[in-house]
Amino acid sequence: MLRLKVKYFDLFTNYPLAILNVENAKDLGINPNDRIKVTYNSHKEILIVETTHKLVPKGQIGMNIEALEIDSVKDGKFVRVEPVGKPISVEYIKKKLSGKELTPEECRCIIDDINDNCLSNIEMGAYVSAVYTHDFSMKELTAIVSEMVNTGKKFHWNHRLVSDKHSIGGVPGNRITPIIVSIVASAGLVIPKTSSRAITSPSGTADTMEVWCNVNFNRSEIKKIVEKTGSCFVWGGAVDMAPTDDKIINAEYPLSLDPEGQLIASVMAKKIAMGAKYLIIDIPFGLQTKVATLEDAETLAIKFKKIGKMFDIKTECTITVGDQPIGIGLGPVPEAIDILGVLEGNGQKDLKEKSIELAGALLKMTGKGDKKTAEHILDSKIALAKFKEIVKAQKGDPDKDLHSMLGKYIFSVKSKRSGKVSSIHNKELTQIARLAGAPVDIGSGIILKKKLDDPVAKGDILFEIYSEKEFKLKNAKMLLERFDPIVVQDHQNILVKKI
Amino acid sequence: MLRLKVKYFDLFTNYPLAILNVENAKDLGINPNDRIKVTYNSHKEILIVETTHKLVPKGQIGMNIEALEIDSVKDGKFVRVEPVGKPISVEYIKKKLSGKELTPEECRCIIDDINDNCLSNIEMGAYVSAVYTHDFSMKELTAIVSEMVNTGKKFHWNHRLVSDKHSIGGVPGNRITPIIVSIVASAGLVIPKTSSRAITSPSGTADTMEVWCNVNFNRSEIKKIVEKTGSCFVWGGAVDMAPTDDKIINAEYPLSLDPEGQLIASVMAKKIAMGAKYLIIDIPFGLQTKVATLEDAETLAIKFKKIGKMFDIKTECTITVGDQPIGIGLGPVPEAIDILGVLEGNGQKDLKEKSIELAGALLKMTGKGDKKTAEHILDSKIALAKFKEIVKAQKGDPDKDLHSMLGKYIFSVKSKRSGKVSSIHNKELTQIARLAGAPVDIGSGIILKKKLDDPVAKGDILFEIYSEKEFKLKNAKMLLERFDPIVVQDHQNILVKKI
Repeated sequence: MLRLKVKYFDLFTNYPLAILNVENAKDLGINPNDRIKVTYNSHKEILIVETTHKLVPKGQIGMNIEALEIDSVKDGKFVRVEPVGKPISVEYIKKKLSGKELTPEECRCIIDDINDNCLSNIEMGAYVSAVYTHDFSMKELTAIVSEMVNTGKKFHWNHRLVSDKHSIGGVPGNRITPIIVSIVASAGLVIPKTSSRAITSPSGTADTMEVWCNVNFNRSEIKKIVEKTGSCFVWGGAVDMAPTDDKIINAEYPLSLDPEGQLIASVMAKKIAMGAKYLIIDIPFGLQTKVATLEDAETLAIKFKKIGKMFDIKTECTITVGDQPIGIGLGPVPEAIDILGVLEGNGQKDLKEKSIELAGALLKMTGKGDKKTAEHILDSKIALAKFKEIVKAQKGDPDKDLHSMLGKYIFSVKSKRSGKVSSIHNKELTQIARLAGAPVDIGSGIILKKKLDDPVAKGDILFEIYSEKEFKLKNAKMLLERFDPIVVQDHQNILVKKI
Repeated sequence: MLRLKVKYFDLFTNYPLAILNVENAKDLGINPNDRIKVTYNSHKEILIVETTHKLVPKGQIGMNIEALEIDSVKDGKFVRVEPVGKPISVEYIKKKLSGKELTPEECRCIIDDINDNCLSNIEMGAYVSAVYTHDFSMKELTAIVSEMVNTGKKFHWNHRLVSDKHSIGGVPGNRITPIIVSIVASAGLVIPKTSSRAITSPSGTADTMEVWCNVNFNRSEIKKIVEKTGSCFVWGGAVDMAPTDDKIINAEYPLSLDPEGQLIASVMAKKIAMGAKYLIIDIPFGLQTKVATLEDAETLAIKFKKIGKMFDIKTECTITVGDQPIGIGLGPVPEAIDILGVLEGNGQKDLKEKSIELAGALLKMTGKGDKKTAEHILDSKIALAKFKEIVKAQKGDPDKDLHSMLGKYIFSVKSKRSGKVSSIHNKELTQIARLAGAPVDIGSGIILKKKLDDPVAKGDILFEIYSEKEFKLKNAKMLLERFDPIVVQDHQNILVKKI
C-alpha cells in the first residue's frame, strides 16, 4: 500500500487511467496495464495503470479526468493505492466461454465488476465474445437486466402512462423519434425520451436535436422539462441509467459484435431505469441492418416482449423494412430538415408513415387512440406546436433557418446511366456522410434525391454531399471512386456487355 | 491525412501508443482508443491513440518508447498520420467465435495483424476467447505456427544436432533447464537455449541465470556464445523469434486462458525459429498445473509430436508428476542454489533425477547416449565445467557466494502439528514468494524444508521465506494468516474434532 499525491493529467483514454512513477509501480509489483485500487475517503475505485520515469514524480499519481470524475478526488489530495487481484468475474466469463449457464449470482457479479471498472479491455473482449458464442438464457438475461438497472439510477414519475420508444438501428436517417414523441406527448402520454449520440452512424437522435437545442441535462433538469411538457429529447449519457451499458458498447464496437442477448439486456435495462410502462420497439430487418431476416426479427420481438412482461413493461414491436434510409437526410442538419418537413406537413412520405405507425401503436397500447389519432395530431400541426414547446423548454430555438446551416461545400453525385434505382448501400452512404464531417460538423452529410425504384435519367442527381470543410468533402468524394452507393439498373436491358 | 512532428513521451503502456492533440484527433475523426497508421520513410506502423488538450500541442504527435522503437523514428521528425479502418482479421476472429474452421489464409491474416499491432486489446481478448471456445484444427494449427515463424527471424546453425528443451510450466522451482543444457552440450549437442522471464511465477529461467550472468544478448552475440560453448542461457525476448507470441501471451495472462492450440503454436513456433532439429518437451500434469490429467497430457504430447513432424523436428515428450515444486528453492537466488547443488553433486534428488531423465532422452534421440551417459557427465563434474564455461562466455561469475545473496529478512514457517506432509499448494507458495519480492528482488523467495510425505514433528520448520525488504516480508507473512501452503496431517488420527 502506498500513499500518493494526486496530479491531474490531461489525457483522454475512454477509461479511468492512473499514471505511476516506475519506482512506485515496482514497489507495488505492478506492470503497465495492470489495475490498482485507489481509496479516497471512503470511495474506492479501480484504475488501469501506465507508468513513467519523469512525467509523474515518485510519490505522486497521475489521474486523468475519467479517473478524477469517478473518484471526485481533487488535484493535490492524497489517496491510498494498492494492487488488486484478478476479479472473480473473470472466472465466470471463462465459464460462459465454455458454454455453461451462469447462475443469477454470477451474472450479477460480472455486471458489478464491469460497473466498478474491474475488467480490462482484454477481459471485456472476452465477455462480449462469450455472450456472442453462447447467447444468454432467459434466466441469465433476467439477472443481467436487473443488475444493469440496479447499478444505475432510476427515474420515478407520478404518472400512469409513462411510455418509451426504441429502434434497433442500422437504418440511416430514420429520425422518427422526435416526431413520435411530439405526437404522443400531444395526446397526453408522458414520454421522457433519452437518446444516444452517433457511434458509427452519420447522426444520433441526440446529435440531430442539438441542431435546435441543448440536449445535455442532469436528472433534476430533465424532471422539470418532462413535468412541464410531458416529454424531452435529451442525451442519455449524463443521467447514469444502466451505466454498464456504455462500457459494454465500448467493447462491442471495435468487434462489430452485437450479441442478441446483450442487445436485449441493454435496451430493456435503460427503459426500466427510465420508468417506462409502455414500450414500442422498432426492429428494422434486412441484409444491411442488425437483424438479417423476418424470422430473426420475430424471434427477437418475442424475447423483448418476454423480458418486458418480466419487468412489468407492456412491450410491442414493429418489424419494418430496413433496406434503405428513411427520409432523405443523413447527418444532423439534413435530418433536422426531414423532421421539420414532416411536422410542418410537407415532409417525406416514408418518414411520416413510419412515425404515425409507431405513434399509433403507442396510443393504442395506452388507450389514447390509434394510428388515425396520430395522423390527425400530426396533420393539424398540434405535434409541431408540442415539438416547439419542448425545444424551447430545452433552451433552444425551433425557428432556425436550417437550410442556411448546411455545409457550403457541395458535390452532386450524378447517375452514369438511365434506369431505376435497384439498390442503396446504407453503409457506404454512412461512410461518405461521416467522411464529409457528420456528425461532428452538423451541417455536413447527405441529402438523397433518389430512392429505391425511382426512375432515373442519365445525368440525374442521385444524392448531394454537403460539407463544412473543403478537405473533408474531398475525402468523401474519394470514396466514390471505390463504389456506387446508389445503384441504377436498366431493367429493360439484361445484357450488360458482350465480349 | 496529417503531417505531425514526433515528440517522445515518457509513458509505458506495454503497447505502442500515440498521443494526439484533441484538435488533430477531431480532424482525423479519431476517438481515444482508436488506431492510426503512422508512416515514416517507408515504415508503416499502427498505434493506439490517447488524446490530450495540452500535453501534446496541435501539430505534434506524442509517441512512447514502444512506438518509437518499432518505427525507429526520432524526436523532432515528421510523420504522416491517418486513420485506419477495422482490420479484416476481426471478421476472421468472429468466424472462429462462431465455431467455423478458418482457412490457412485467414489464419495467416490474423497472425499478421497481431504482429503489425493492428488488433486492440478488446480484439485480442476476442481472439484468445475464440481459440479457447473452439480449439484449432491441425490444419489451422499448422498455418498459425508457420506464420508465427514467418513474422519473426530464424536462426541457422552449421550443425546437425541442434536441440532444444521446453517445459509446459506450472511447477514452481523445477529449474532443470541449466542442468540439462550443461549435460547435453558436454556430450556434443548444440543447444541454443532461450528462456523467458517470470510472468506469474517466482522466477523464470532467465531471471535465475541472471543471478550469475548477463542474459540479454542480441542475435550475433548469441551466435558467438553458441559457437564457442555449444550452448547459451539467454532471454528470448530480444531476439525477435515468433514475436507475435508475446503479444498473444499478454492477452492470455489477464484471462488465465491458455488454449491448448495456442500453447502448441507458441512453443513450436519458437523452436522452429531457433533452428531446433531435436526437441524434448516436459509436460507436468496434475490439478495444480496447466494439464489436469494423464490423459490430457497424452493427447497434448501426441499433438506436439504431429506438429513437430510437420516441421521436421524430431519431438519427444516426458509426462511428469507436477504436484509439488521440484527442488527446494523458489525465487532467483534460491533456485540458483538448487542448480549449483545438483551440478556440484550434493543437490536435491528430484531435481537431479528429472534433469538426467530429460537430458538422457535428448542424448538418445541424437544417438549420443542415454540416461546413464547423462548421469555420468553430471557425476563427473563435466556438466559443472560446461556450466561455468557458458556463464563466463555470458560475462558472468560462476563462483558467486549465493548464500550471501539471500535476503536478510527471514521468517521460518513452523508446523502446528505432527504428522506427514499431505499436500503442497504450489500457487500459494508462488504468491508468498512473489509478495516477498521475487523475482524483482533476486534474493527473495522461499526455501522448502519439507516436501510431500516427509514426516513432520510439531514445531519443525516447513519452509523459510527470504526477503530483501522488511515491508515485503511483512506482506508475504500476511498471506499465511489466510492459508497453509504446506499441509501436515496426522494419518493415524482420522477424527479431527468432536462437537
